[in-house]
Amino acid sequence: MKALNNIAVVGISGYTGLELAKILLRHPETRSLTSYMRETQGARCLTELFPQLRGCGQAPVRTLSVRTIAESGAGTAFLATPHEVSAEIAPQLLHAGLRVVDLSGAFRFHNAETFQRWYKLPAPHAAQMAGAVYGLPEFYAAQIAQAKLVANPGCYATSVILAVRPLADAGWIASGSTVVCDCKSGATGAGKELRRDLQFAELDENFKAYNLFSHRHTPEITEHTGLPESQVVFSTHLLPLARGILSTIYLTLNEAQSHESVETLFRKTYAGRPMVRIWKAGTLPELLHVAHTNFADIGFALDSSGRRLVIVSCLDNLGKGAAGQAVQNFNHFLGVEEQTGLQ
Amino acid sequence: MKALNNIAVVGISGYTGLELAKILLRHPETRSLTSYMRETQGARCLTELFPQLRGCGQAPVRTLSVRTIAESGAGTAFLATPHEVSAEIAPQLLHAGLRVVDLSGAFRFHNAETFQRWYKLPAPHAAQMAGAVYGLPEFYAAQIAQAKLVANPGCYATSVILAVRPLADAGWIASGSTVVCDCKSGATGAGKELRRDLQFAELDENFKAYNLFSHRHTPEITEHTGLPESQVVFSTHLLPLARGILSTIYLTLNEAQSHESVETLFRKTYAGRPMVRIWKAGTLPELLHVAHTNFADIGFALDSSGRRLVIVSCLDNLGKGAAGQAVQNFNHFLGVEEQTGLQ
Amino acid sequence: MKALNNIAVVGISGYTGLELAKILLRHPETRSLTSYMRETQGARCLTELFPQLRGCGQAPVRTLSVRTIAESGAGTAFLATPHEVSAEIAPQLLHAGLRVVDLSGAFRFHNAETFQRWYKLPAPHAAQMAGAVYGLPEFYAAQIAQAKLVANPGCYATSVILAVRPLADAGWIASGSTVVCDCKSGATGAGKELRRDLQFAELDENFKAYNLFSHRHTPEITEHTGLPESQVVFSTHLLPLARGILSTIYLTLNEAQSHESVETLFRKTYAGRPMVRIWKAGTLPELLHVAHTNFADIGFALDSSGRRLVIVSCLDNLGKGAAGQAVQNFNHFLGVEEQTGLQ
Amino acid sequence: MKALNNIAVVGISGYTGLELAKILLRHPETRSLTSYMRETQGARCLTELFPQLRGCGQAPVRTLSVRTIAESGAGTAFLATPHEVSAEIAPQLLHAGLRVVDLSGAFRFHNAETFQRWYKLPAPHAAQMAGAVYGLPEFYAAQIAQAKLVANPGCYATSVILAVRPLADAGWIASGSTVVCDCKSGATGAGKELRRDLQFAELDENFKAYNLFSHRHTPEITEHTGLPESQVVFSTHLLPLARGILSTIYLTLNEAQSHESVETLFRKTYAGRPMVRIWKAGTLPELLHVAHTNFADIGFALDSSGRRLVIVSCLDNLGKGAAGQAVQNFNHFLGVEEQTGLQ
Repeated sequence: MKALNNIAVVGISGYTGLELAKILLRHPETRSLTSYMRETQGARCLTELFPQLRGCGQAPVRTLSVRTIAESGAGTAFLATPHEVSAEIAPQLLHAGLRVVDLSGAFRFHNAETFQRWYKLPAPHAAQMAGAVYGLPEFYAAQIAQAKLVANPGCYATSVILAVRPLADAGWIASGSTVVCDCKSGATGAGKELRRDLQFAELDENFKAYNLFSHRHTPEITEHTGLPESQVVFSTHLLPLARGILSTIYLTLNEAQSHESVETLFRKTYAGRPMVRIWKAGTLPELLHVAHTNFADIGFALDSSGRRLVIVSCLDNLGKGAAGQAVQNFNHFLGVEEQTGLQ
Repeated sequence: MKALNNIAVVGISGYTGLELAKILLRHPETRSLTSYMRETQGARCLTELFPQLRGCGQAPVRTLSVRTIAESGAGTAFLATPHEVSAEIAPQLLHAGLRVVDLSGAFRFHNAETFQRWYKLPAPHAAQMAGAVYGLPEFYAAQIAQAKLVANPGCYATSVILAVRPLADAGWIASGSTVVCDCKSGATGAGKELRRDLQFAELDENFKAYNLFSHRHTPEITEHTGLPESQVVFSTHLLPLARGILSTIYLTLNEAQSHESVETLFRKTYAGRPMVRIWKAGTLPELLHVAHTNFADIGFALDSSGRRLVIVSCLDNLGKGAAGQAVQNFNHFLGVEEQTGLQ
Repeated sequence: MKALNNIAVVGISGYTGLELAKILLRHPETRSLTSYMRETQGARCLTELFPQLRGCGQAPVRTLSVRTIAESGAGTAFLATPHEVSAEIAPQLLHAGLRVVDLSGAFRFHNAETFQRWYKLPAPHAAQMAGAVYGLPEFYAAQIAQAKLVANPGCYATSVILAVRPLADAGWIASGSTVVCDCKSGATGAGKELRRDLQFAELDENFKAYNLFSHRHTPEITEHTGLPESQVVFSTHLLPLARGILSTIYLTLNEAQSHESVETLFRKTYAGRPMVRIWKAGTLPELLHVAHTNFADIGFALDSSGRRLVIVSCLDNLGKGAAGQAVQNFNHFLGVEEQTGLQ
Repeated sequence: MKALNNIAVVGISGYTGLELAKILLRHPETRSLTSYMRETQGARCLTELFPQLRGCGQAPVRTLSVRTIAESGAGTAFLATPHEVSAEIAPQLLHAGLRVVDLSGAFRFHNAETFQRWYKLPAPHAAQMAGAVYGLPEFYAAQIAQAKLVANPGCYATSVILAVRPLADAGWIASGSTVVCDCKSGATGAGKELRRDLQFAELDENFKAYNLFSHRHTPEITEHTGLPESQVVFSTHLLPLARGILSTIYLTLNEAQSHESVETLFRKTYAGRPMVRIWKAGTLPELLHVAHTNFADIGFALDSSGRRLVIVSCLDNLGKGAAGQAVQNFNHFLGVEEQTGLQ
């Protein structure tokens, strides 16, 4: 019988899939966990593929097949699969009665054109795109709790939206001013594909910008902050470390604010939201503070005019930026506290 | 008898002083090199302090004393000393007839108030401040060639000024628009002082912003780009690597430009300037490209409107950002090609 | 009223103390946790000192005083203090009726001369030294369960003893042959003291040996493997990473063994010991497999003669090498499963 | 007309080939440098492939063809190619009258069986194997100066042989005692092939042993120290850093020595050999001391019995371990000082 806490994790070979498995294996509400991959290479359980997981719980590994998942009794499927695969199998899993948290970009937009423009791919099934809920629980918890399909946000997008949206909602951002989002990510954010620039000898002691004016998380940022694309400049950089995103965000305010008023705005927005931590005016979060956690940490500095604001927003790209946030969304499916299994 | 290529390097215990010694030991114009430090601890030559320099040349080590330097026959002194020490001894060395390249912030401003405001210290001798030449040879080569006292620029400032000044000089920056300079530096840029946040276990796998709205290189940037302070936001971050600064700079142009026009502007500005390398439109420099060199590399991206420009500017904070640039200035003293000994 | 699960963690400012606090805050058996330090600098709770712990539980911080601890109701004290401090306060805490897990080297030897020879310090109280139990639960679980004072082993020593002792106990090591223990540790193993060689710019991209023939963990290794000092060469190296020890150990066997027989010996020794994981013949553990865990992983290679054996033994120096192992010992105090709170 | 200082570098796409090009571009004796690769992808000069080399000199790039090289006027060819390629083209280049420094393992053994056993490949041309000189100039300078074909040593082998051979030659190693060589290398030593375990996220914060009892450098070590294979255990590990090998070597001496006698033995062996630096008794070299240099640094520790010796031997795997040593051999071809262009 289908139950939400019988879980299928699809796409176990990437960093996000493995992180999902690790979190869910120790999650108190997990009843069963089965992992799926395209090529099991004869492996029957997770510890055959990842011997370092011995002693952390057991999960069978099966060859990916929608029918197998559908008949497995799983009530929730996490898709840590490429866009194309998610676009294909999410509708089938929904049809089979599962609830789905998709970690790819396939269902993050309601508008097919947006998807096509940024992903250069045919858009997924329109009805499913329309019905998907953007899985940022700090803003959409009620809809997530009811959603059949949750589109888990991009890692950079999460980091930027959490920082900017409180100011956008408050109407504090100077009209027409540019919001600069200078974002830096560790190497696991780029995935597990074999790429020259992700080789150790190429990234060690290195730092670089990439995908300027073309990063796919851009439309998530504009849609969920409400800022027009012309007002946002979003850049991404690769850090020589494994885990974490730090975004430095520059805004011009339409009128002078004090440190207190800014801090209060953030605290009010995230009151009752345990996974977002606001740093006191005068202090700033660092990547190490959030690595291996599901926290998103936000700090800021305000210049003496009170009108130029710099926000520093940190999270673990595999935690709050991907697998952790997916589990946070799952907790809303279950109706348990959103930090369950995430501390 | 004093000769310019009899060299005194003062302050050999920090990273910059050591880098200076390494460069000057292999510089073809060096006739003699003597290094000075406050506490020689009985060492008489550089390789007693740094055994890893064996086989790279020899330099005596002496206890710092202006009189000793003055009587040594040295014609050029490099000061890799704290501001206070430079402020005190530079005038004395000038008085003794040496030419001085000071790598501290003591003489970077003509205006005593600017120094006091940002350094929270009494300003150095006014006449010397007034007479010092800012040691950015790409813009001030003629003055440097004649200068008695060169104030070697800050590492971040060099990185930002080289990127922004061509646009400022061309009048391309939209009036009143904010220029955001998001700068990231490796650990040697923070000096060799024992500090908790520079311990390996604190910086490894970490990344953080610091000194927002208060970094001392700010007034160098405004003065040498001509931008008012209200138009510049300059932030600094610490990278988990040893050497290098990468600055990502965001500008709004007052009218649309093409990739070609931007690239041409940079190429024209730096024609005949071998230490600045312009990257073709569509390509971007990375930190590893400039580590252990004296190059400053500049690349850019322009959005489809042609009005939003992102510049990526890289250099080695100990090379073009400090010791290398000091030697480049010294080459102008000598009248040799500015890249001599720097390749 | 004193209860074992009212816990005092003494010495919260170092890496080990902080790791202890993190583990114990999420340990299911912890009833209360109070942390002590010499200088609280006005802080009243852990999150004032370490804001990154917000959301992970609360612990008051108090100025270190044996009387305060004694009157606090704490039944267990963890000492993450220097040898001298542990030597002084452990007897007082025992006298006050607490059970103590000491993470320093003060009580690791029964013999005062051994301590004096290797630590160059006066030995602690002889009766306490005599009564302390060496806290390696894989070998001394029964005594630990009854012990008033547990001397938590050194991180390197744990890594070596777990690898070598099964062979020593089986009598497989060729008589008189040298056992070479080439050990490598991450930077947190060296503690949080401000030291030049632990600065990021000195350790990044570096690797070095240190303390050859003089490391204080040597006598732990000889005592708990039963090998004479003349038969053991133990060397230590510093790795450019934060957490983890990997020991490569070279032994000559007195008669030829097969891969199966070696693997079987390890598996039998550690049957029922969940924190030691044996890797299949032909596979080897890596540091990343054990970082941020309490596992000790052991793998090996045997040459074609069957008589030359190389063992690779890994653990996290702050986990199984220090704080995790201390909690494992505490679990034996409580009589719960030894992996409780450690997964 | 062929001249030794018209140089062909074959195999420019790997780390070693690029390092060769960098060194030779600034070498004072280089008259011309042409680089060859299998697939030039339309590039005509080195800076099109590696824009970061702009300003460092120019070298044409051509598609690899023995005929092209033979007709180019080149007198020296450096082969930074795989064994199979070197085995094929080295004889052809020799036949065309060039002198060859081969950096692969193809010609390191006189005995075909040794090659076949360790490389699992058919052996190269027997006469060429027989005629090749092992390119370790500290021991074979006279032969190298006359050689047509130099087999540049393996990086690990260089590090071990330089440390062990003085003791072997002196007859100091206890008969039948095991010599343990525990070696650790940075990532560039493993080459530029795309491999999962060389991805940044897999090696960062990681450390592991590999190829135990099966590393191909083993027979170089035994042949050039004269020790029987049964007396040597050689292990290799991968460090999370880019450049450098540090070998820790454990020997038992047949009679007690003093620090002075050991240091004297090393100093005498390497008198007049500028690229080997001996560290004073009581001090040890570190990887950072040799990174980006052609030095091999040797230090040691002796236990109180005077019979157990630990040697620490460091070099840069791309410097003295590969490209730098190849140029050192080339200097012997030319008859110039062996450190020419290497400082």
